[in-house]
Amino acid sequence: MKFCSNCGAPVALKIPAGDSLPRHVCGACGTIHYQNPKMVVGCIVEWEDRILLCKRAIEPRYGLWTVPAGFMENGETTYQGAVRETLEEANARIEIGPLYALYNIPHISQVYILFRAQLLDLDFSPGIESLEVRLFEEQDIPWDELAFRPVRFTLQNYFADRKAGNFQFRLGDLPPPAPAG
Amino acid sequence: MKFCSNCGAPVALKIPAGDSLPRHVCGACGTIHYQNPKMVVGCIVEWEDRILLCKRAIEPRYGLWTVPAGFMENGETTYQGAVRETLEEANARIEIGPLYALYNIPHISQVYILFRAQLLDLDFSPGIESLEVRLFEEQDIPWDELAFRPVRFTLQNYFADRKAGNFQFRLGDLPPPAPAG
Repeated sequence: MKFCSNCGAPVALKIPAGDSLPRHVCGACGTIHYQNPKMVVGCIVEWEDRILLCKRAIEPRYGLWTVPAGFMENGETTYQGAVRETLEEANARIEIGPLYALYNIPHISQVYILFRAQLLDLDFSPGIESLEVRLFEEQDIPWDELAFRPVRFTLQNYFADRKAGNFQFRLGDLPPPAPAG
Repeated sequence: MKFCSNCGAPVALKIPAGDSLPRHVCGACGTIHYQNPKMVVGCIVEWEDRILLCKRAIEPRYGLWTVPAGFMENGETTYQGAVRETLEEANARIEIGPLYALYNIPHISQVYILFRAQLLDLDFSPGIESLEVRLFEEQDIPWDELAFRPVRFTLQNYFADRKAGNFQFRLGDLPPPAPAG
């Protein structure tokens, strides 16, 4: 952030009175511009013993598989966001189930919020952000071609919980990935 | 938002290609400025059968009581945010417990995330944002002087759950308040 979105004047990093962190503060109109973490909302979509994955048609992670998920929008609830993302990415209608995972990803200032959901019919197809949408049985999950670590962790937990017959809400943190090599 | 925070030129509301919602788009450098919901993180701080409340020294709701809570910051986890807010508002050290409530408040684009927590010692005092910090037994909770509806709902659930001997995670929505009169 270099300029004030309110008046267009340059901003500077300063700790406002009564605050403890540096913020972008406008030198002209005094507006304080706060920046806060974003929520990614999505779901594990179930149909019998299969789950729905989308192959990404956009960066980042073009060509890799993910559960339907994306940035929560203003004016919606967490599960409305998950329903919307599923419709956008997979043209699929779902009924949202219980909250299944909340992952903190502090190094990128994101919180992942994932629900379980039931697919309502088989009339799905790739949305504009997907190359392909498919139902996968556990043994066919493309583990080496998953787009995001929260998706991998969630699916690992999901199949373990399903085997145990006991779905448990998961709250966890994802540290930065280890450097390659 | 009237000006681009990247280059200072005016922005206009437009639906970007491949998007479905209007965004503030810069007419000069093309930057798309997304706006997303914010998380408020906090906790119900327990000491034996009492809980800790803070009397607000800032607007909104100056002079009313709340649990320690505030906007989550970039670079922290949800429960680190709750610990930080408790330290800032009540100079109190806590151990975070289980997630207790997640409230969607779509009309103000906020999500409240509240944990239970244990107070570690009695050496607490008002932080700069608080007029007073006190431990309350259930019968002394100032129900008519609580600052925020999510706080009221959470405390009602909390004492009901405690009576029943079974704390349950709550996921819910808060609609806009009914108009006065």
